[in-house]
Amino acid sequence: MPKDERIYIGVDLGGTKILAAAFDSKLKLLATEKAKTPREADATSVVQALADVVRRLVAQAEASSGREIGGVGVSVPGPLDRAKGIVRYTPNMGFKDYKLGSELSSLFGAPVFLENDVQAGVYGELRAGALRGKLNAVGVFVGTGVGGGIVIDGKLYRGSTGSAGEVGHMILQEGGAACGCGNYGCLEALASRTAMAKDAIAQASTGKAPILFSVAGSDLRKCRSSVLFEAVEGGDKGVKKAVDRAASWLGVGLANLVHVLNPEAIVVGGGVVTRFGQKFLDRAIASMEDHLMPGLSGTAEILLSELGDLAVPTGAACIAIEGSRRDEDGPARDGGKR
Amino acid sequence: MPKDERIYIGVDLGGTKILAAAFDSKLKLLATEKAKTPREADATSVVQALADVVRRLVAQAEASSGREIGGVGVSVPGPLDRAKGIVRYTPNMGFKDYKLGSELSSLFGAPVFLENDVQAGVYGELRAGALRGKLNAVGVFVGTGVGGGIVIDGKLYRGSTGSAGEVGHMILQEGGAACGCGNYGCLEALASRTAMAKDAIAQASTGKAPILFSVAGSDLRKCRSSVLFEAVEGGDKGVKKAVDRAASWLGVGLANLVHVLNPEAIVVGGGVVTRFGQKFLDRAIASMEDHLMPGLSGTAEILLSELGDLAVPTGAACIAIEGSRRDEDGPARDGGKR
Repeated sequence: MPKDERIYIGVDLGGTKILAAAFDSKLKLLATEKAKTPREADATSVVQALADVVRRLVAQAEASSGREIGGVGVSVPGPLDRAKGIVRYTPNMGFKDYKLGSELSSLFGAPVFLENDVQAGVYGELRAGALRGKLNAVGVFVGTGVGGGIVIDGKLYRGSTGSAGEVGHMILQEGGAACGCGNYGCLEALASRTAMAKDAIAQASTGKAPILFSVAGSDLRKCRSSVLFEAVEGGDKGVKKAVDRAASWLGVGLANLVHVLNPEAIVVGGGVVTRFGQKFLDRAIASMEDHLMPGLSGTAEILLSELGDLAVPTGAACIAIEGSRRDEDGPARDGGKR
Repeated sequence: MPKDERIYIGVDLGGTKILAAAFDSKLKLLATEKAKTPREADATSVVQALADVVRRLVAQAEASSGREIGGVGVSVPGPLDRAKGIVRYTPNMGFKDYKLGSELSSLFGAPVFLENDVQAGVYGELRAGALRGKLNAVGVFVGTGVGGGIVIDGKLYRGSTGSAGEVGHMILQEGGAACGCGNYGCLEALASRTAMAKDAIAQASTGKAPILFSVAGSDLRKCRSSVLFEAVEGGDKGVKKAVDRAASWLGVGLANLVHVLNPEAIVVGGGVVTRFGQKFLDRAIASMEDHLMPGLSGTAEILLSELGDLAVPTGAACIAIEGSRRDEDGPARDGGKR
């Protein structure tokens, strides 16, 4: 079957859910499937769950198109060796120097390409979302943490050891809020959902966040984006303050990125941003403008993610499409490394 | 005369001095010349002074080699339109939308290329100094302010409006020391020579900087690198504290750059760094390591500038060599834009 008629799969393998999407070679969305990531998971049961999702997806997409799999891209939330298809380590899924690429490749009978989740999300926005057509850009995703990716000259820029784009660990307030990385005052410690939740829960103790308190108590993990959103909508002033403050810090982070990289555009995504939308982004933009030196004001468009949850599977599928094309064009097999 | 036998000139046109160097096409240094930039200068007298320096330099280099000028690169401390050879604005030299490129080109009978001073310095280090052979790197220059430049894939990365590398205006301590740009807590406000001088003069009032006080009083402009250095060597504890503190802040800035760009190397230069040398850099490196997330430690070499004062003229000359080559290869004339 010629490659143009095959289907390509992108999988976002996350700590809580597995989201997969099937596309044709022109990146037209054919179908999506999802499942919960097994809890207390070992690698074997995660691979099993991933394979089930992909099989269901393929069945759905094949039924509608009669096509074979041309390639699969899988995004993983942890360090990996793209060239060898090895997942070095993941915090919650039991992978440790695990040959996920070759294992899945045998299972599916198609080439498999691994990618970091944030990088895949930025790549999705670049190829099919808010960054389409941009040459120099940045993606910032706000969730439990804050991750990022950098586009230079229309391609993902990975840095010298593949770690470029750790924008969540830029220090914006030396000595400020403690970060999970061991430092203080990182963007992630100031603007992530976790940071908002900590702030909001502190406000709850003064009675300024009754709705949040009734739903989440003092449990940070229960302060999901939807819970924070409903508390703000319901009138929890303490939660609104915490969310506004995080948006302002995000703006300081965006200003730093504009000073260093002078990008055409920065796309901002992730659960909180998707939930609070343009109003949240507008506050971040106002704070960014406050923190830019003269001359850089207005140089970068700050855009909301267009693809939302599908950014990561879309980027992973793009990597599979491009990687499979390279595999057919020449003898070199680099497992999706650009 | 074939272009390989011509000489190429690089000029660092600064607010206080003009430093020029002549090279052969293989970047072998043939001669240097310098002069003070005219005070209270209008554009005409600055151009005159620059032309005199270049003429003396050419006389010297021609005498020793019998060669003609192949091209001239001029670095300017302000915004410019490289493609059109126009200096948009300089704080102290009276240039305002000034066609410096074409004017000098008529004077010298050779193509003239303009470049931003910090970018030229980074390019000099890339082609002939500490960054030789690096693909992804950063340069940070500490002086009255803090400037920077970014190398991606072996080339200068300029960003979408030519302003990439404004690393001095990354905010490291929101709400901290006031910066000339109007913000608070920028790297420049914490680690520049000006920042050190402010700190040191404050210490002087408590009697902890007697040597500095006897030389510079409370005049920030008199706190030059050499004055600060001699005060530290002479035992001024307050000055040592101010310099150490600036080095630590520089380390926080380096950590931010490593998180965002994951470069192979960062070259650090400028008057203060050259004067205080490896000890200053070691303190900055220790602070950087303290502020890196796990996994990025040790990924970037932090290097002292190798070319010192000659980094900028060398980079400007490289740009002239490469620009002249492109001019001869094809009909397109882009004034040195890469």
